[in-house]
Amino acid sequence: MINMNLKKLRQEMANRSIDAYIIPNSDPHMSEYLPDHYQVRPFISGFTGSAGTVIITKDKAGLWTDGRYFIQAEQELKDTDFKLYKMGVSGVPTMVEFLLEETPEHGKIGVNGLVYSYSDYRNLRKKLGKRMILTDITFAENLWENRPELPKSEAFIHEYQFTGCEASTKLSKLRTEMREKGIDYHFLGSLEDICYLFNLRGSDIDCNPLLISYALISRDKAIFYIDPVQLTEEVENYLEDQGITPRKYDRIFEDLKEIPGTSVFYYDPNFTNVKIRELIPDNVRFKEGRNITTWMKAIKNKREVESTKNAFIKDGVALVKFLNWIETGANTELITENYASDKLLEFRKEGEYFIEPSFGTISAYGENAALAHYSPDPSNPVNIKAKGMYLVDSGGHYLDGTTDITRTIKLGEVTEEEIDHFTLVLKGHIALSSAIFLEGTKSSTLDILARGPLWRNSLNFNHGTGHGVGHVLSVHEGPQNIAMIPNDVDMLPGMITSNEPGMYVEGSHGIRIENILLCVEKDENEYGKFYAFENLSWCPIDTRLINFELLTQDEIDWINDYHKTTYEKLSPYLDGDDLEYLERRTEEIDF
Amino acid sequence: MINMNLKKLRQEMANRSIDAYIIPNSDPHMSEYLPDHYQVRPFISGFTGSAGTVIITKDKAGLWTDGRYFIQAEQELKDTDFKLYKMGVSGVPTMVEFLLEETPEHGKIGVNGLVYSYSDYRNLRKKLGKRMILTDITFAENLWENRPELPKSEAFIHEYQFTGCEASTKLSKLRTEMREKGIDYHFLGSLEDICYLFNLRGSDIDCNPLLISYALISRDKAIFYIDPVQLTEEVENYLEDQGITPRKYDRIFEDLKEIPGTSVFYYDPNFTNVKIRELIPDNVRFKEGRNITTWMKAIKNKREVESTKNAFIKDGVALVKFLNWIETGANTELITENYASDKLLEFRKEGEYFIEPSFGTISAYGENAALAHYSPDPSNPVNIKAKGMYLVDSGGHYLDGTTDITRTIKLGEVTEEEIDHFTLVLKGHIALSSAIFLEGTKSSTLDILARGPLWRNSLNFNHGTGHGVGHVLSVHEGPQNIAMIPNDVDMLPGMITSNEPGMYVEGSHGIRIENILLCVEKDENEYGKFYAFENLSWCPIDTRLINFELLTQDEIDWINDYHKTTYEKLSPYLDGDDLEYLERRTEEIDF
Repeated sequence: MINMNLKKLRQEMANRSIDAYIIPNSDPHMSEYLPDHYQVRPFISGFTGSAGTVIITKDKAGLWTDGRYFIQAEQELKDTDFKLYKMGVSGVPTMVEFLLEETPEHGKIGVNGLVYSYSDYRNLRKKLGKRMILTDITFAENLWENRPELPKSEAFIHEYQFTGCEASTKLSKLRTEMREKGIDYHFLGSLEDICYLFNLRGSDIDCNPLLISYALISRDKAIFYIDPVQLTEEVENYLEDQGITPRKYDRIFEDLKEIPGTSVFYYDPNFTNVKIRELIPDNVRFKEGRNITTWMKAIKNKREVESTKNAFIKDGVALVKFLNWIETGANTELITENYASDKLLEFRKEGEYFIEPSFGTISAYGENAALAHYSPDPSNPVNIKAKGMYLVDSGGHYLDGTTDITRTIKLGEVTEEEIDHFTLVLKGHIALSSAIFLEGTKSSTLDILARGPLWRNSLNFNHGTGHGVGHVLSVHEGPQNIAMIPNDVDMLPGMITSNEPGMYVEGSHGIRIENILLCVEKDENEYGKFYAFENLSWCPIDTRLINFELLTQDEIDWINDYHKTTYEKLSPYLDGDDLEYLERRTEEIDF
Repeated sequence: MINMNLKKLRQEMANRSIDAYIIPNSDPHMSEYLPDHYQVRPFISGFTGSAGTVIITKDKAGLWTDGRYFIQAEQELKDTDFKLYKMGVSGVPTMVEFLLEETPEHGKIGVNGLVYSYSDYRNLRKKLGKRMILTDITFAENLWENRPELPKSEAFIHEYQFTGCEASTKLSKLRTEMREKGIDYHFLGSLEDICYLFNLRGSDIDCNPLLISYALISRDKAIFYIDPVQLTEEVENYLEDQGITPRKYDRIFEDLKEIPGTSVFYYDPNFTNVKIRELIPDNVRFKEGRNITTWMKAIKNKREVESTKNAFIKDGVALVKFLNWIETGANTELITENYASDKLLEFRKEGEYFIEPSFGTISAYGENAALAHYSPDPSNPVNIKAKGMYLVDSGGHYLDGTTDITRTIKLGEVTEEEIDHFTLVLKGHIALSSAIFLEGTKSSTLDILARGPLWRNSLNFNHGTGHGVGHVLSVHEGPQNIAMIPNDVDMLPGMITSNEPGMYVEGSHGIRIENILLCVEKDENEYGKFYAFENLSWCPIDTRLINFELLTQDEIDWINDYHKTTYEKLSPYLDGDDLEYLERRTEEIDF
């Protein structure tokens, strides 16, 4: 089937004289999670991983993906003509190198501009020299019989008790900034930004309570492009009250053609697809940058912070129940990683306002945890046993906030190496958690604090340390990012960011300790403003995995304080077994 | 006199219809230290500080300088029509804001393009909109009777025993890179780069053993533009041997006009003046970036490292003698800051291969040390007493290497605050010094390690933490920089960088502890390459200023190790009193 489709695609390519055809894993909104409707690359290649791009030429068909997916891709591609190109492995050509090598100097490259970001397109164009890029190519989509429909979930209002700011107020703040920057139109393609701005949510996308839509904000109009079937009468009335005009989803393509030539049009090239960008008249004055709403939603207001804190209490309660259950159940050797993941969801569902998981749970036993983004394979269930460690990285969207937490716990005998690695990861976690820093400190600057203890022992983990966390939107949001790659975004009070150093040894074990941090003001004096973090996540850290000889007194104090607060926050909501478990796991260390 | 000149300048400005005239503190090579010949801004304004720019309009005359010079500038400008514009103070217009405010939309701005960098010029042009910038304005220079001549020091060869690489070899390395990057001509305007490349030194500029010159490197020619009187027969023969063609200094202006239109011309816009850049034919294909030699000279080779290490031993010996002398002499209350500075130079001169100080010595007693860049005022001598602390920041160029070191020592009674501040600065110094970090770590990333202990106490210092150090060139060199401002330059093995956190309390005290660090390879495994620092500076750190309760055992161990090595390295070259002093000040701490 895969190979037959490939043949058909090549026939279409030949008809249009296309030398290479790019099929990305993307949707018109550059979403992190894709609705089934946009799973075109998996349909064409058979590879189901969440990241990967296909390029097809007359005689080659390649799939580019990163280290997380090498094994899976090899398995899924093995009976097809697709070849795996391992990204980041030396000697393997990048996609651009491949295109330069495999297409003639004046060749034609095809892609579907609807699902390709304008910034990626522009970069590609710069690198491909005289080659022409055709952006209206939908051969793959056209081949797809029984393609799933676009989801059409019902929109609902995210109430003031959670958001602390009416949509109309957000709109007027946005317009104030538009005026200051001389912007007439602000286009929004990112679903998180639209749902944030309008205080609306839905369930169009797994693990993201979002609505597939566009928005176009001008000085006097806020147009919300969405399928009308998704709007109840209540929501329609609400939109009218807030000064938001709903229009059919596809109408954006007509409206943008009418933007007056003298006006200033602002858009984020990373969240605007090529099709949108190209149909705006050329005589419009374009201005680019991050969506203004990206900054607005990154700095949480008081109400958002308070309601998020509440969500984290419920989440901690669910996690304690789960950890108690799994520590007890491991002896039976009957619990699979997948079953554990389902059970955790059950516990979370007990929490008020729970919506859905905020991402696919990573439930990883033993050596499986060495894959930082492991997800259990249903066809090859792994049983959890009373030996070694178990890692669980999970989170939930609640109406009052979004959570994300990782714990690695001891289920039985562990090695000295595992204990030392756990301790070093914890040291890094504590260092970042207790950082105090001057105003103007870039978010990436803080990364070294979490890696320091590992680096000191010639160890490292191969992923970022901290991502921004959205408020009932996406669990991953910018602009701040704690990572080795430098960025110029200040860490600012009100930002909510993860703290998740780890350590992974292939074939042996994986460790990650993740809490969520709120940046707060700490002090102000003649030297400037000083910021710090406040912990939002409450759940015991397994002290049986610590080599106390590697800790300083300050670190031991941190752990004791953390466990004392965890007990205070969670104990009112636990009883019996679970309360005993919490007591045991938050016991004061006296070393 | 100042005001009379101002009147004459305004007359000239009126004649050419110039609305604003910029007089920067600069030379054609964007040197850090200027020869007297280029001290035009001090001549015009009367302000003698090393940083500051003058802007003159029809009815205003301003001097912009930073916090280091506010007091000095106020004094020096007080009898003139110049007004001080305090840079960085809120409410004070920046130079660009001033120009936008004080000149008409289509106004004319004048500057001498010979002493203005092309990058500054381009930035200015971007910000000033429709205003025209005339770059041939030399009214101030023309007014200057008795202007000092350009220095014409004798060039000498920096021998292989110090450089470890022949000029001809450096040239072929440079050409290999030029070929790889498709560069036909590489222009060099920075004196450090030229002297490095040709293994030549001179004494045209105070504290910098450099030669005023340009260079133009093509695939088959290396032209060295310098006044012929500076070349001895020996050097002329040397140049011929190395494949370097000397030409008259001013001839560069003719030669650049002849660059063939099809060729690729590479230059560093930060080290190329506007005059140079503008006379190159427009049809040349320009390519910009850091001088390739900047990278070559930043990564020291084995011989450079070994000879630098030797220079640091001699420097440590001089400093120990000096510190012993001053601790003893403070009781007499007869030593002024200036005299101390002269005495230190005497001690340094005893060292083999000593050339000159590598920058103006900062010899600061008591509250004077609160000015991070203090320099003693000869007309107002300050006596050093047996009370409080004394800070000395100094260094030397030796034929075998360049040094830079700061020590803050106790001369008598000190406050608890002073001791706590010293301890926090030391903790930061130790943290940076003992950093271990993964390949790919940006130099600016390391900054937080040195500031961490101060930040934790809501304190900060208002300068960078570490600058690159040249090899018998300039004591400040890029591209690496350890500072709060992010940069994208990796810290790489072979780089030599300062480590100088401080703490300053106006009207009370100043503390800085500076050693120089060599970046070295530490380890390599499946997680990557790990780098660390090796200390190059050897001189006791005053343990009488430490609050040991604030130190960890690791930090105490670091101090003991450092003092043990200091004793081993320096004791062979000291005797009597000085040896006893060294013994006392490097005694092991047992806390």
